[in-house]
Amino acid sequence: MPEGIENEDLPEEPSFRVPAVEIEDRLARLQQALGAEELEAAFLVQTVDRFYFTGTAQDAFLFAPAQGPALLFVRRHVPRAREESPLAEIVPIESVRRIPELLKKRFGRLPARLGLELDVLPVNDFRFFRDLLAPQDIRDISPCILRLRSRKSAWEIAQLEATAEMSRRTFEFMRRFLAPGMTEMEFAAQAEAFSRRRGHAGVLRVRGFNALGYPGHVLSGPNGGRPGLLDAPATGSGTSCAFPAGAGPRRIRPHEPVLVDFGSVKNGYHLDEARMFAVGGMPEEAMAACRAAIALHDRLIAAARPGVTGAALFEQAVTFAAALGYEESFLGPPGHKVRFVGHGIGLELVEPPFLARGHETPLEEDMVLALEPKFVFAGRFAAGVESVFRVTPEGGRLLSRVPVEVFVC
Amino acid sequence: MPEGIENEDLPEEPSFRVPAVEIEDRLARLQQALGAEELEAAFLVQTVDRFYFTGTAQDAFLFAPAQGPALLFVRRHVPRAREESPLAEIVPIESVRRIPELLKKRFGRLPARLGLELDVLPVNDFRFFRDLLAPQDIRDISPCILRLRSRKSAWEIAQLEATAEMSRRTFEFMRRFLAPGMTEMEFAAQAEAFSRRRGHAGVLRVRGFNALGYPGHVLSGPNGGRPGLLDAPATGSGTSCAFPAGAGPRRIRPHEPVLVDFGSVKNGYHLDEARMFAVGGMPEEAMAACRAAIALHDRLIAAARPGVTGAALFEQAVTFAAALGYEESFLGPPGHKVRFVGHGIGLELVEPPFLARGHETPLEEDMVLALEPKFVFAGRFAAGVESVFRVTPEGGRLLSRVPVEVFVC
Repeated sequence: MPEGIENEDLPEEPSFRVPAVEIEDRLARLQQALGAEELEAAFLVQTVDRFYFTGTAQDAFLFAPAQGPALLFVRRHVPRAREESPLAEIVPIESVRRIPELLKKRFGRLPARLGLELDVLPVNDFRFFRDLLAPQDIRDISPCILRLRSRKSAWEIAQLEATAEMSRRTFEFMRRFLAPGMTEMEFAAQAEAFSRRRGHAGVLRVRGFNALGYPGHVLSGPNGGRPGLLDAPATGSGTSCAFPAGAGPRRIRPHEPVLVDFGSVKNGYHLDEARMFAVGGMPEEAMAACRAAIALHDRLIAAARPGVTGAALFEQAVTFAAALGYEESFLGPPGHKVRFVGHGIGLELVEPPFLARGHETPLEEDMVLALEPKFVFAGRFAAGVESVFRVTPEGGRLLSRVPVEVFVC
Repeated sequence: MPEGIENEDLPEEPSFRVPAVEIEDRLARLQQALGAEELEAAFLVQTVDRFYFTGTAQDAFLFAPAQGPALLFVRRHVPRAREESPLAEIVPIESVRRIPELLKKRFGRLPARLGLELDVLPVNDFRFFRDLLAPQDIRDISPCILRLRSRKSAWEIAQLEATAEMSRRTFEFMRRFLAPGMTEMEFAAQAEAFSRRRGHAGVLRVRGFNALGYPGHVLSGPNGGRPGLLDAPATGSGTSCAFPAGAGPRRIRPHEPVLVDFGSVKNGYHLDEARMFAVGGMPEEAMAACRAAIALHDRLIAAARPGVTGAALFEQAVTFAAALGYEESFLGPPGHKVRFVGHGIGLELVEPPFLARGHETPLEEDMVLALEPKFVFAGRFAAGVESVFRVTPEGGRLLSRVPVEVFVC
């Protein structure tokens, strides 16, 4: 058996539940937001949004009125939805078409002004629900939901800390496991396997249409200097032109910088962290860039207080990168730079807020973000770091537990 | 190093490409279909559809007119799109907003009747493109594209055979690797790691809104008798209520039936196969159900000739399962049965055609399907098998290379 195959002492039956007080608080905040938006109800279809407000990811539809109890219509599987969700009203349905009649029975009528998740709902589904529920007015409720989700409760921060601990151990495993001659894919796969044995779901949730939760990114040497389809400073080779991002078949050499960007998720909560690895050290030019990325990382996290905007932090990052002498390589090579240096994280890998130009909404206490300053030297290598932190009045506080250093193996 | 860590001799730079003749043939068939639907053009946004017609998965938009050359507008990364795609007209764009002007320059005007992928395109994106391209009429082009994709070329069948060989080796690894006391997650993770070292992309493509490509399903003993959110006979426990499907933390015991349903993908082409495993044998009741599933599997594959409908094959399956004495457990326990016994497969894990009630379109030669007869005994276990085959005039011919037997370890 490979090193580290010892099993975590996980209970054999998944016992994780979202507490009732969390759900009550989230629904109360949703109701308040619906009132402010002058909507009578939200009808939530997307799995992650439904999970946030109900505690269950079963196949279901959530009807949340601005006033009165929320109803969860469950298609399958009702007993599991009842075990998992503290909601009082869980209504079994054999067909979605029964929902209007059940709503009329419960509330006397269908809502005239309804919120739907228009950023993710496909046109055909939208038309079906529009015809089924026949509201006079439909509004996009997703910005409101994502705003509610962006501030994490103390309980959610504890969940993110549990994922951070799992991720810390995975990076520690990677430090022990890396050896020259292994391919990027092999290294990524063993890190994922290690993480899955400790609770990692093995799949990352991404909201965007067409966005794919590519697993562990391992970009060795020149693969770190390779732009591609991803809205990221470097994309890597990927396994083929059909999946052209992330780890690929290149063998890792000694003395080259290797960027490892690894997402993992435990009990629904994601971490997204990156560190530089090298077998037997790396050239001083690359090491200097790693040190600069860490300096930038520390400085930006310290500055992440409530009231500061994502745009202001982004400008600070650009200015500081230039002062360090890395203007040209910051966030991608010239002509291929990404427009953000950080993003919210939680039940999805990438959520608002964004540390990016144009994002003028101030950060709030207990928002949780991933910060990822990276320098990319086209065709040569990448150097960077990524950690997850929460916003506090004293500045950002790291949730990440991976040592903020270069991992020389 | 764990057993089987030897690397495949993959080239270090992914060299897989879709041949130009494939792309030409696919685009010609699309143009024919557009003509038949009286559409002037299709504007394809979804990654897999775009990849099918262009050979590249870069961040781009495909404009395919009913007459004249197809244009691929590439946002990022142009050099990679040019390397990967044989298309003659690859047009770099800095912003999507430039597309109308570029189309007018090339074709003199914008199309009045346009096909868009309405099954996957989110409402907000749809509205954006509708306003941008301002056609008089928009139609859902997805059914047409999925129909074109359902018949595989000889080259595509060779790709599926390569994935089948990778999958055969993964199942062989699983047979050697399974040991009592390991958790479902650990078993799944090591199988995935083995597969990724041989080219598996590590992530499965699923088209449906909210559908998640859950990795390796390993359902041991009672977890095989557990319905859940999936439109599958059994869902398993999953890692937590946030990801409540597939392998979970239960430890695999000796002498219990273990259903392993494993999807893998190489160069974009998916396989989806299931076999029963057991450590030291399983009770005769379970073994008999496995034999019945294999009998059903063999009989249905033999019957899968061009001209037979998915509905007819489904009815044959139900009738034969009942004749074997498994009416109650077939395709799920009473009240939780799924409504299909097979599905197309290719660039996505689940594609048309479906072997299901109501699917009256006849099968055609060179369609490729996954067939998955499964029996579920609520709260106790599942027994089943899944293979991938292609339709030929002599009946289905297996592409799967995994021995059709129970894997007793």
